[in-house]
Amino acid sequence: MPLHLETKTEHFTNPLYLESGRILEPYDITYETYGQMNEDKSNIVVVCHALTGSHHAAGVYEGESKAGWWDGLIGPGKAIDTDKYFVICSNVIGSCFGSTGPISKTPNHQEYYRYKFPVVTIKDMVKAQRILFDRLDIHRVHAIIGGSMGGMQALQFAIHYPNFAQKVIAMATTHATQPWAIAFNKVAQEAILKDPEFQDGYYDPEVIKEQGLSGMAVGRMAGHISFLSHESMGKKFGREYKRTDGLYELFGKFQVESYLEYNGYNFTKWFDPLSYLYITKAINIYDISRGFDSLEDALKKIKSELHLFSFKNDLLFKNFEMKELAEALSGIQNKNFSYTDIESDYGHDAFLVELEKFEDDIKDILNG
Amino acid sequence: MPLHLETKTEHFTNPLYLESGRILEPYDITYETYGQMNEDKSNIVVVCHALTGSHHAAGVYEGESKAGWWDGLIGPGKAIDTDKYFVICSNVIGSCFGSTGPISKTPNHQEYYRYKFPVVTIKDMVKAQRILFDRLDIHRVHAIIGGSMGGMQALQFAIHYPNFAQKVIAMATTHATQPWAIAFNKVAQEAILKDPEFQDGYYDPEVIKEQGLSGMAVGRMAGHISFLSHESMGKKFGREYKRTDGLYELFGKFQVESYLEYNGYNFTKWFDPLSYLYITKAINIYDISRGFDSLEDALKKIKSELHLFSFKNDLLFKNFEMKELAEALSGIQNKNFSYTDIESDYGHDAFLVELEKFEDDIKDILNG
Repeated sequence: MPLHLETKTEHFTNPLYLESGRILEPYDITYETYGQMNEDKSNIVVVCHALTGSHHAAGVYEGESKAGWWDGLIGPGKAIDTDKYFVICSNVIGSCFGSTGPISKTPNHQEYYRYKFPVVTIKDMVKAQRILFDRLDIHRVHAIIGGSMGGMQALQFAIHYPNFAQKVIAMATTHATQPWAIAFNKVAQEAILKDPEFQDGYYDPEVIKEQGLSGMAVGRMAGHISFLSHESMGKKFGREYKRTDGLYELFGKFQVESYLEYNGYNFTKWFDPLSYLYITKAINIYDISRGFDSLEDALKKIKSELHLFSFKNDLLFKNFEMKELAEALSGIQNKNFSYTDIESDYGHDAFLVELEKFEDDIKDILNG
Repeated sequence: MPLHLETKTEHFTNPLYLESGRILEPYDITYETYGQMNEDKSNIVVVCHALTGSHHAAGVYEGESKAGWWDGLIGPGKAIDTDKYFVICSNVIGSCFGSTGPISKTPNHQEYYRYKFPVVTIKDMVKAQRILFDRLDIHRVHAIIGGSMGGMQALQFAIHYPNFAQKVIAMATTHATQPWAIAFNKVAQEAILKDPEFQDGYYDPEVIKEQGLSGMAVGRMAGHISFLSHESMGKKFGREYKRTDGLYELFGKFQVESYLEYNGYNFTKWFDPLSYLYITKAINIYDISRGFDSLEDALKKIKSELHLFSFKNDLLFKNFEMKELAEALSGIQNKNFSYTDIESDYGHDAFLVELEKFEDDIKDILNG
């Protein structure tokens, strides 16, 4: 049957106790569902999004042309088959697509939070989702899946809510963010902060959406380097020049330059700079062993069947990070897990692009 | 004997015909020499600097604490032994340390060139050096050596002045700049251009030197990612935090963030943003096969003994780029060359840092 897509927002008035000790109260979570929940609620699949993703993971909104970010994977007859599974994807807190974040309005003063918004962690994002699922009377799910920051959430679900998911699939991610990923985030953060239009967080969100924020565009360009690989950039762009007669002009453009410009400046029209600061902060301080004596101690909590996927030429979350995780799991008795290092030249974004390399695995895991 | 260091500037009134068809006239070249030229001029070694380097390659100026950028390699008894060799290093045209560049004054109007400065190429930089050497009555040298953009110059010397150098050593470089290197340069260029203080090139150089330019700092931070490797960042910084109590503060700092901040902002006090734009442009359009039917045709011109070194984990100029060059050379009869891929986790900056890994090779090549 055709994809049935619903977008809703739930409002919560109880305080959300954050890892930092601060609270968020009240808050909203926007989410999307695909397919139908069966009677015994045994067909629920939770999808977690990455840094700049949203709850819109599949399908096309009326009047729009762009499909959800994992539309190739989620839908009728696809790997995450919406004829079979009830799929739910929510926008993380701190983001800017409906869930409460730094550019939401405070309850008392009806001003934007801006820097008054508390730092949230990946664990907090997961906790908020768990509360959303409680509201929806969902207390256990068939599977949780995510890539990049979505994979971080999947792992945090596995550790902090060990009875929640039967299967957990984490792709193109890590057990603790490493300095090169923090470095790429740093470039973006500095670029945003130093843009005078950002006004130290006191920009007008409507104006920024209209005009874009060049600092964020620059930061996003650095991000795009980390999303690809040397091999994929070589294949995609080579040394192709947009206009050969521009060779000796100071600003003549290589294809790779046009690509970065387009993606950088376009990005600033649909993403909020404060959310970018808050979510990259959450990614930077992500470490699944925090609060435990060791990584092993954290992993011992996991009861779900765990499936890890890395991509060979991922520059952002190197495949050896996932290998470390798999090795740590190997040392623990009775862990039901698999680890696959996918042959790929594409780089980090392979989890969004090279679906043919893992969709059968996902299907097998979900159906198996 | 102690290092004898001399800094001089030569002024040229004849036009420099550039690859673009434009001319630069008049122009200055600033250079430094170490050691003494012998009578038959058989002991001359030319050193070429990288993007932000200068003619100051060795020794310490009076009243300063920082030594030249390759001081570990050049000096009495060192790999490039100044008791034996007469070493000369000049600042490339387009740069900002004495040689004519975009922030030099035009001859007619005594205004800064700014965007009126012509685009220069690596080949132009080499041509200007060749003219400087003519002025100094140097028509043939024992060796030319450089890393990164310095290696590009060494290769251009080998191709365009085949009778000039007996030996040519190129390290951590490439035969044609690839899209990932162009992408890193693009981030820096955009960051500079979008900084309102840059004023579309009409900044006051004195003021910028005093205050720094945050756009250039941001761009340089991206550059620093490309100078290291995942392995060296892991070892250098790990997930070390400057203050652990800053974990839940939005701007709490990881060591890697402090490192990037320090190096980024410090950089803007000693380098000129217009020079950064012009030199990165020269690097982007560098391709030793330009003007030839093929890479092989370009390489056929080489008569010097050629020694290539790559570093295994170089993210900026991947070792496979040098391998491609070595393979192309293998296919040409009677080429006297060697290629060494140095075991190193450090990344691109290994050519500046891990001298112990190649200094004996350099010594052997020079003395052999």
